[in-house]
Amino acid sequence: MQLAFSAADIAAIVQPISVKGATAATVRGIAALSSAQAGDLSFLGNTKYKTEVAASAASVVLLPPDYVGEPKPDQQFLFVEKPSVALAKVCSRIEQLLWPKPAPGIHPTAVIDPGAQIAATATVGPLCVIEADAVIGERAHLQAQVFIGRAARVGADCWLMPRVTVATECVLKDRVRLQPGVVVGSDGFGYEFVQGRHEKVPQVGNVVIGNDVEVGANTTFDRARFSHTTVGEGTKIDNLVQVAHNVVIGKHCLICAQVGISGSTTVEDYVVLGGQAGVAGHLTIGKGSKADGQTGINSDLAPGSFVKGSPCMPYNLEQRFNVLKKKLPDLFKRVDALEGLADSLKKSSAS
Amino acid sequence: MQLAFSAADIAAIVQPISVKGATAATVRGIAALSSAQAGDLSFLGNTKYKTEVAASAASVVLLPPDYVGEPKPDQQFLFVEKPSVALAKVCSRIEQLLWPKPAPGIHPTAVIDPGAQIAATATVGPLCVIEADAVIGERAHLQAQVFIGRAARVGADCWLMPRVTVATECVLKDRVRLQPGVVVGSDGFGYEFVQGRHEKVPQVGNVVIGNDVEVGANTTFDRARFSHTTVGEGTKIDNLVQVAHNVVIGKHCLICAQVGISGSTTVEDYVVLGGQAGVAGHLTIGKGSKADGQTGINSDLAPGSFVKGSPCMPYNLEQRFNVLKKKLPDLFKRVDALEGLADSLKKSSAS
Amino acid sequence: MQLAFSAADIAAIVQPISVKGATAATVRGIAALSSAQAGDLSFLGNTKYKTEVAASAASVVLLPPDYVGEPKPDQQFLFVEKPSVALAKVCSRIEQLLWPKPAPGIHPTAVIDPGAQIAATATVGPLCVIEADAVIGERAHLQAQVFIGRAARVGADCWLMPRVTVATECVLKDRVRLQPGVVVGSDGFGYEFVQGRHEKVPQVGNVVIGNDVEVGANTTFDRARFSHTTVGEGTKIDNLVQVAHNVVIGKHCLICAQVGISGSTTVEDYVVLGGQAGVAGHLTIGKGSKADGQTGINSDLAPGSFVKGSPCMPYNLEQRFNVLKKKLPDLFKRVDALEGLADSLKKSSAS
Repeated sequence: MQLAFSAADIAAIVQPISVKGATAATVRGIAALSSAQAGDLSFLGNTKYKTEVAASAASVVLLPPDYVGEPKPDQQFLFVEKPSVALAKVCSRIEQLLWPKPAPGIHPTAVIDPGAQIAATATVGPLCVIEADAVIGERAHLQAQVFIGRAARVGADCWLMPRVTVATECVLKDRVRLQPGVVVGSDGFGYEFVQGRHEKVPQVGNVVIGNDVEVGANTTFDRARFSHTTVGEGTKIDNLVQVAHNVVIGKHCLICAQVGISGSTTVEDYVVLGGQAGVAGHLTIGKGSKADGQTGINSDLAPGSFVKGSPCMPYNLEQRFNVLKKKLPDLFKRVDALEGLADSLKKSSAS
Repeated sequence: MQLAFSAADIAAIVQPISVKGATAATVRGIAALSSAQAGDLSFLGNTKYKTEVAASAASVVLLPPDYVGEPKPDQQFLFVEKPSVALAKVCSRIEQLLWPKPAPGIHPTAVIDPGAQIAATATVGPLCVIEADAVIGERAHLQAQVFIGRAARVGADCWLMPRVTVATECVLKDRVRLQPGVVVGSDGFGYEFVQGRHEKVPQVGNVVIGNDVEVGANTTFDRARFSHTTVGEGTKIDNLVQVAHNVVIGKHCLICAQVGISGSTTVEDYVVLGGQAGVAGHLTIGKGSKADGQTGINSDLAPGSFVKGSPCMPYNLEQRFNVLKKKLPDLFKRVDALEGLADSLKKSSAS
Repeated sequence: MQLAFSAADIAAIVQPISVKGATAATVRGIAALSSAQAGDLSFLGNTKYKTEVAASAASVVLLPPDYVGEPKPDQQFLFVEKPSVALAKVCSRIEQLLWPKPAPGIHPTAVIDPGAQIAATATVGPLCVIEADAVIGERAHLQAQVFIGRAARVGADCWLMPRVTVATECVLKDRVRLQPGVVVGSDGFGYEFVQGRHEKVPQVGNVVIGNDVEVGANTTFDRARFSHTTVGEGTKIDNLVQVAHNVVIGKHCLICAQVGISGSTTVEDYVVLGGQAGVAGHLTIGKGSKADGQTGINSDLAPGSFVKGSPCMPYNLEQRFNVLKKKLPDLFKRVDALEGLADSLKKSSAS
């Protein structure tokens, strides 16, 4: 995004408690303290970087009220309660420029079944397909090349980026944001082994995604065998995640990239799963549990668990193991030595 | 799926051996015994849940012939040979309602090269692209926004869901079902390192997918360097799986979500790979082998192997290790103690 | 690809140093020595397969100058400096047939904003969407159903296969090749936890992909929180890879399938990451480092590191551990025996 903010524009957005110094520079970028150049906005978000402020070439720096120091010539310090919150306000303003609100209406190249219901305030972009009986809510934005299957429902203020697929009868509640390539409602992976062949178990449930859920690019959600695969309000899911059939994800979870959650598992509220973690089927991951990256979870977790490893152990035990692992070659030598001593004892007692 | 079956409708589908009780309820859902409400169909698929039948609020329950117990008022028991098979019959009926057979024909917004051959009984949905010399078989269904490259072949009764890509010269045999976002025929990942740069090794083979194969959402298959990347008849592949160039997958395998299979590896018939398992290149995974989730396979496996861990070991050995791993801190203490004893022995013998 | 080369056609492509034997066969395929049939071209790329040449049924075989042996009747040996390079030349010729250069121009079904700038020599295929202020370079090829967001830039000679998405303001430099389903510029995964909810941190940077980069199917790149997520010149990335926000990947790296790289990590030049490897955030992976498949990297790596395991250790240490792991059950027995001996020593000294 090519920015062009004056220092006064920044101050108007962040409403500083106080100001030191001044700059005539136009702010055209945002950068970390150490890499910022003239023309950049920077910020002290973490006190451990405090010493980097004095050397920073940023034209405007957001600082906490207790920061002690003076700006360089042509540099402005803006003192704010929380620099990271102030930065988010600037970014939010930029975001509005980056993603301007689209005009409502249906692009002439979209293919809409006459039985679909589309709110007058919704935006349906080019080359979208909306099948019969689908319902598109107020101010929903289907950006381009989106597919909405028969009788699927997209709630108010949802934003579906290019190439999202929401299959038959699936439901997105309000303010759901799906990044490009997300698939909601692929078939669950269920087969019965009959006479040497895998016979398909029909997957006739759906997927229900709660309010304020965000989902990363190319992530996939399988429809339930029957009933619902569900994602709770406010949960955020990263790219390339797999959510299997009949999974129930609670509210306000964070599911990092490339996680896989197997069928019929329940992930309770406020769970955090690190990147590439895998969860076996038919488990319950208790409220507020955390799993490190690449963790393999193959048993229920009590609420508040913190786990690591594959198969996982409590975080501290796994870390203890990772320390001992490095000492194993030495342990084998130590046992060799003890056995040598035992042998010589036996020989001396035998003689 | 909003159902509306009477108890008599259910009985007509499952053809019970005998019936107990009666209900006037309309069946509008399917649920597990413990979560079923009035208006739900439930079933006893596994005898370990037998005690849940008496407390279940389901209006209709599918039970094995030897189940002993009486229905509540306004509840009907249907006794069938195999409740899970009977349930599958009901689901299959629902599936026909969920996914009605499309009418044959080509949607006016599809972009079809005049050199493509499309069976008169096939359905080509909106905004599909079919390039020259592609062949689309009898009753094949390209749902929407599907891409079929030059000279690719789609067999009879295939179902390609929205946004599937089948690239140039790739082949789907009959009754192949591809979930949304599947890519068949991306380039294999092959480079030669020449003078500090990775030079592309042309990937000019194709992908051949056998009869009755099903593939999950956003899974990718690379075309062979030359000859064919192949998937055998009846194999089922889950979401977000990577199949590299020149891989040969046998018949009736189950490949779970997020598995990766590296180049030129052969996976023989009836192999089962758990979620997030990885297989190195140029290996042979013997017939009927199984790998647990997150397994890393870096050597050939004899037929019938069952492995776990990364790098994998036989399942029982890896599980034995996982038990001993928890006892390692104690083992270090035990060796410390033995060394203490040895030291005191040395001192006493020296004194 | 259905080939039809005469032996003379092959010789014209590879320019052999010398020739032995002759064949009237038409070359219709390429195969390994052991699986080649009459009508196939084969090659000795690795001297360990030397003994397979004599038994090979291939009609034409590419051999190194020092190979000693005679062709069978109706078989031709072509002696070349490097058989694998000669084969690549043949494949390159086939590739030109497989992927003929498209005619420049814009397909009538593409949806192009009047504010987009498209080079006259570029090809924009069917059902592509190009938003305002996007720039498409000379001879760039957008195959079909591609999405280019507002103010994004596609350099000269890029090839974007079906269903690629390049979101707002992202940049592809020259000769970038993106396989089907790639997403460039999805939002970074950044939230602040405020009063029990995850509040979105706006992601207003972009993604910049360097010259000669190739990217596999359904791989995803997140846009930076601010500034740029970048991929250096000549780097090759496989299928289903996740590149998080603010990641910096250097030049000439190889990133294998299903790798995940977390936010703000720097991967220096010539790094090789094996399949399913994961890299934590805010790290630096030094120049020329290598990680085995499924490695978990959670700390900085010095240049030239070679690592394995999760969390990773130097390759040799991890392999040493993998040997000792198998001897652990025995080690526990050995310590049991030593303790038994110690007990009997204590008893005998006490008596």
